[in-house]
Amino acid sequence: MSSPKLNYSRRIRSTPYTSRVEALGVSGYSVVNHTILPKGFQNSVEEDYWHLKEHVQIWDVGCQRQVEICGVDAAHLTQLMTPRDLSHAQIGQCLYAPMVDENGGMLNDPVILKLAEDRFWLSIADADMLLWAKGLALGMKLNVAVNEPDVWPLAIQGPKSDDLVSRVFGNSIRKIGFFEFEKYPFMGRDLLVARTGYSKQGGFEFYLNDFTLGTALWDTLWKAGEGLNLRPGSPNLIERVEGGLLSFGNEMTRENNPLECGLEKYCQLDGSIHYIGLEALQKIAKSGSKQAVRGVIFEGEKCPPCQHPWPIRLDNRQIGYVTTAIWSPRFEQNVALAIVDNNYQSPNTPVTVEVSDSSFSNGRVVDLPMQDP
Amino acid sequence: MSSPKLNYSRRIRSTPYTSRVEALGVSGYSVVNHTILPKGFQNSVEEDYWHLKEHVQIWDVGCQRQVEICGVDAAHLTQLMTPRDLSHAQIGQCLYAPMVDENGGMLNDPVILKLAEDRFWLSIADADMLLWAKGLALGMKLNVAVNEPDVWPLAIQGPKSDDLVSRVFGNSIRKIGFFEFEKYPFMGRDLLVARTGYSKQGGFEFYLNDFTLGTALWDTLWKAGEGLNLRPGSPNLIERVEGGLLSFGNEMTRENNPLECGLEKYCQLDGSIHYIGLEALQKIAKSGSKQAVRGVIFEGEKCPPCQHPWPIRLDNRQIGYVTTAIWSPRFEQNVALAIVDNNYQSPNTPVTVEVSDSSFSNGRVVDLPMQDP
Repeated sequence: MSSPKLNYSRRIRSTPYTSRVEALGVSGYSVVNHTILPKGFQNSVEEDYWHLKEHVQIWDVGCQRQVEICGVDAAHLTQLMTPRDLSHAQIGQCLYAPMVDENGGMLNDPVILKLAEDRFWLSIADADMLLWAKGLALGMKLNVAVNEPDVWPLAIQGPKSDDLVSRVFGNSIRKIGFFEFEKYPFMGRDLLVARTGYSKQGGFEFYLNDFTLGTALWDTLWKAGEGLNLRPGSPNLIERVEGGLLSFGNEMTRENNPLECGLEKYCQLDGSIHYIGLEALQKIAKSGSKQAVRGVIFEGEKCPPCQHPWPIRLDNRQIGYVTTAIWSPRFEQNVALAIVDNNYQSPNTPVTVEVSDSSFSNGRVVDLPMQDP
Repeated sequence: MSSPKLNYSRRIRSTPYTSRVEALGVSGYSVVNHTILPKGFQNSVEEDYWHLKEHVQIWDVGCQRQVEICGVDAAHLTQLMTPRDLSHAQIGQCLYAPMVDENGGMLNDPVILKLAEDRFWLSIADADMLLWAKGLALGMKLNVAVNEPDVWPLAIQGPKSDDLVSRVFGNSIRKIGFFEFEKYPFMGRDLLVARTGYSKQGGFEFYLNDFTLGTALWDTLWKAGEGLNLRPGSPNLIERVEGGLLSFGNEMTRENNPLECGLEKYCQLDGSIHYIGLEALQKIAKSGSKQAVRGVIFEGEKCPPCQHPWPIRLDNRQIGYVTTAIWSPRFEQNVALAIVDNNYQSPNTPVTVEVSDSSFSNGRVVDLPMQDP
């Protein structure tokens, strides 16, 4: 398969960290929220995988754009947008939150940062949730302002993250709880430091609120990494699949509801709170989901990227489809995230994955996150 | 500057034409509406430019996704979304339409296709207008359905377009008026053929309403191109800049209003129709725009892509910024689209363009579309 280059323009936004990422030899990009996301450097994705699980990496995740909702009706609008019960959310808390439309179809799965009782950031996956929020607000005549602030997340991920970040911001960062944030001074700004990130290896995300300070923040963290084997990295596809971390646009689209995506625990279905899609989700819950996200491990050569869903079959009957797949050096097989019919979800259910018209691989259903081989 | 590759995934959607585009050696992609847009093939952008102006090209513009609005309130919602007066729009008409928010800020500039009195397609630029439309509809309790249909535009552009397309669909296509569409049978489907496209060289866009027929449509047109010097192509940056064709996300963002983007003629400001942003635009019109889109031609080596706005100065005072620029083989200078302060818009106003911190080029303001050198 050819690998064309990404063409540059103002529309495909670079980040405050792009100059550093390019100096370090970024080899591939994706585009998320009209913004470039580095996807690889000089090492292979397998080398980056092992490194992430043992050491520490710095990731340009400036593409995780923020939708800021503030004003008298901010809490009301934010709650309307998600099935997750936000009534007990604390200031300083990060809340992973599926967002759905009136049919219960997934629109996004941001992390919501509660900055104040009347001010929230949605740290979004790849869709213009600003337009959804603005449309609802205008249509409902809500008293809120919806904007994209000058905020550019940068991540430190991997088991040595606390060691690295404490060198810069002090040992108090070790006390930041999982999915909580604290503010630290950085060059005259309040820098929001959250214990979050798109890996299962632990770490932090820095919500830098000034584009012009991007290189300074990167360089400060980079310098602090001396002796820790710090490398530039990116959300690692092998680690993400094995860890069962879903991606909006890959595992979840508007055709999927959060119940089949394994997000029931973030859906308040008892009617105690009101949100868009409540009735639809109650109906789905009552009749039962027909499919669910599962892991699949399958044999064969290193598979190509999954650009269209690959059918999964059992005895020639299609029972689901792969949405993301990559070769795992730990399993020495291909690992995949898949949507599988409810009747065929038992671990070790034997399946065939149709990687292409001419390529079929034997595999099996597994639990997520995937257990050690 | 490095040119990293675009990484593939399901989220970055391919089109029905991707297999053909890759077989023909696509060398670069952009991403628009979560979908790949081919940006170049084996020839240079200069060679493609001359070819487009003399012959005929086939473009995969499947990224021009459609937002379908249908139902009792469809005409009402569509009108609410644009300052353009749609009250006299005819079925079969294509209408270029700026869309703005309540502050008059640009959200998109789709071509609206009126399919029926109660059914419209918005052929959108790069933003999730489906979420804007759905949010408004839900908030206002409008009786409409908003969806993304299985429709994948394919373009034929260049002066020999009529010759090529008439070979497939007959001479009646020559009578399709500018920004009008007709339906033609294609493999059991109604194929919508419009005299539109993102160049000034003339041509058609095919709104194929079945992904699985993409290769058949491409191959049919490709075969019909024998003897016409048909080549694969893409929206050409040189031709677009010289022709003054704006791009949402480049020349226009939410920070810009349609009046300063030269789109006054698409803005009904007399209050005879109601739409979102009317009051804001009336206010801007009353006080007068402070800046406008202009052309700039400047000297020097072939410039790099404009990833951040480049300041334009006159006597060390900043009077605007470049949003898109590229070297033109016709002018043998760089050509650019720019936002320029109202006081400095006369043709031949001498300016300096700050391409980077260390690179300043002498240039001049010019009218759009740019006249022959």
